[in-house]
Amino acid sequence: MTTKREPSGEDKLIERFFKPLATHPGALALSDDAAYLTPPAGYDLVLTTDMTVAGVHFFPDDPPETIGKKALRVNLSDLAAKGAEPIGALLAISFPEEIDEGWVANFSRGLGEDCVAFFCPLLGGDTTKTPGPLSISITAIGKVPSGKMVKRAGAKAGDLILVSGTIGDAALALEMKRRFLSGGLGDLNKPQAAELLRRYRVPEPRVALAPMLRDFANAAMDISDGLVGDLGKLAAVSGVSAQIETAKIPLSNPAHDAIAGESALLATALTGGDDYEVLAAIPEARFTAFAEAAGKAGVPVTAIGRFGEGEGVVVLDANGKELSFATTSFSHF
Amino acid sequence: MTTKREPSGEDKLIERFFKPLATHPGALALSDDAAYLTPPAGYDLVLTTDMTVAGVHFFPDDPPETIGKKALRVNLSDLAAKGAEPIGALLAISFPEEIDEGWVANFSRGLGEDCVAFFCPLLGGDTTKTPGPLSISITAIGKVPSGKMVKRAGAKAGDLILVSGTIGDAALALEMKRRFLSGGLGDLNKPQAAELLRRYRVPEPRVALAPMLRDFANAAMDISDGLVGDLGKLAAVSGVSAQIETAKIPLSNPAHDAIAGESALLATALTGGDDYEVLAAIPEARFTAFAEAAGKAGVPVTAIGRFGEGEGVVVLDANGKELSFATTSFSHF
Repeated sequence: MTTKREPSGEDKLIERFFKPLATHPGALALSDDAAYLTPPAGYDLVLTTDMTVAGVHFFPDDPPETIGKKALRVNLSDLAAKGAEPIGALLAISFPEEIDEGWVANFSRGLGEDCVAFFCPLLGGDTTKTPGPLSISITAIGKVPSGKMVKRAGAKAGDLILVSGTIGDAALALEMKRRFLSGGLGDLNKPQAAELLRRYRVPEPRVALAPMLRDFANAAMDISDGLVGDLGKLAAVSGVSAQIETAKIPLSNPAHDAIAGESALLATALTGGDDYEVLAAIPEARFTAFAEAAGKAGVPVTAIGRFGEGEGVVVLDANGKELSFATTSFSHF
Repeated sequence: MTTKREPSGEDKLIERFFKPLATHPGALALSDDAAYLTPPAGYDLVLTTDMTVAGVHFFPDDPPETIGKKALRVNLSDLAAKGAEPIGALLAISFPEEIDEGWVANFSRGLGEDCVAFFCPLLGGDTTKTPGPLSISITAIGKVPSGKMVKRAGAKAGDLILVSGTIGDAALALEMKRRFLSGGLGDLNKPQAAELLRRYRVPEPRVALAPMLRDFANAAMDISDGLVGDLGKLAAVSGVSAQIETAKIPLSNPAHDAIAGESALLATALTGGDDYEVLAAIPEARFTAFAEAAGKAGVPVTAIGRFGEGEGVVVLDANGKELSFATTSFSHF
């Protein structure tokens, strides 16, 4: 008897839900063991990888399409902060036994929408099973003109400290989820609560800022583990100090209201993580031009303080008083 | 109070155990959000990713250094089969709460030895925690002269079917582990059992074959899900049939003895997976030159059959009788 090849369940899953995302020619429609990429001449590649785990980085009952989006977006956020534009991504995913096809369909739909929206097709991947929670590991590949990757090290004393978007929404959403049984966050109304949750589930990678960061920033990173802690990392590796003023930190309307109702939530917003906004060091003389270019690209940016000589991070409240925090950033260990 | 930055547990783990592996200049000593890579002119990059999960791809009580080695080697095996030489790798790893520093030290030592041995430094990574089992996702990046990646599709009717090394050792090791309480596999002695287990834990990526595959092979892949099933995949995507003879399939001494003692284990060896040997289509006229070059590079290769017109895989036993298998390859779903 000739053994004819019947596609396995794994093959069918890939064929149906992931092959449509693999529009890059080097992905070979996911029919090979590896992808190839002809690097564009005159460019460096920028590589980043992030693993997201159910119950750690997202709630298992989050909509599967937002889980797919977030897994890609946290990587695109890293690329953007480095001044890189996406080329493609590889996806390794381990499914628990009980995941059903409907779930995978919605997950791949969300992921696929963002592959298209951010010009970041799937290049390859791996599917496996796990006795544990769903885990998604994405490696994103971007490009920058040779030698132009924006590094963390490079902030200079005197540079303005810039952030994109608004800070603290995702951390406040997490806190709100944590307090669910005791009534959420103060007086936030439903649309406000929904807005915070949206920011947690679907961060906005600032891909449009990438070319401006290459042109204007002395240093940049994305804020993933909390503004204060990440600013500390950037300042330390640059050999400078940093001072920011809470009154200048851009807050969304729901974040503003939540903090107005309970001032202790300011610390949550500034140290809680999951912002996926850009933190950058911009020379003061070039800040206006940068902000104008960013505005034209649709990305709001705000100067929240300044780098200086020395070391450490100072956070000043509205009265010019120094704040201190129990923990400055999120760490898994 | 100035908030000075104290390294987190996560930072210390990376600093101590993973930074020494990040010898590539573009890794920036793992102090940035991403790595950069200046692609070598005239080359394509080859990208592959594999996730390995405790209890699925390795035993949780396997030595941590072999877990580190295997996680990298399964990716290097993909690169080798594509004719690519390693450039570097990214590591995303999720640790369960109970993993201790000693474990991580040995894991990173094993991984680091192979980063050196295979010229594949760490480019970047991500560490996180998981409520589930240890999961390791590695993305490996290799290079081939432009346009020269060896694909799965390309085998031609008449080509010889080649495999490297020996087939079935890892699958037999798994079966031996499964039967542990009932006495293992027949009459295998301790060194034979240890040899099978070593093959399961530390596969041998055939990196040395990469340049020869580029020069001689019409198609290639690595055998990870079982010889018969993977041969079926390569034949199907190439639009040809395949016929192999069990008498020609290279077996290690312990695999030979195990199968001699229990003929049903032949199916385990041929369909069980985890071989990480190369399967390739070599034009007959060039086979002698290929085998000679492979031998000089220290890699034993064996012709086990031939591709033909049509479709499907035929496996002939020593009497020329066609064998059939309940399942031809491993699938997670």
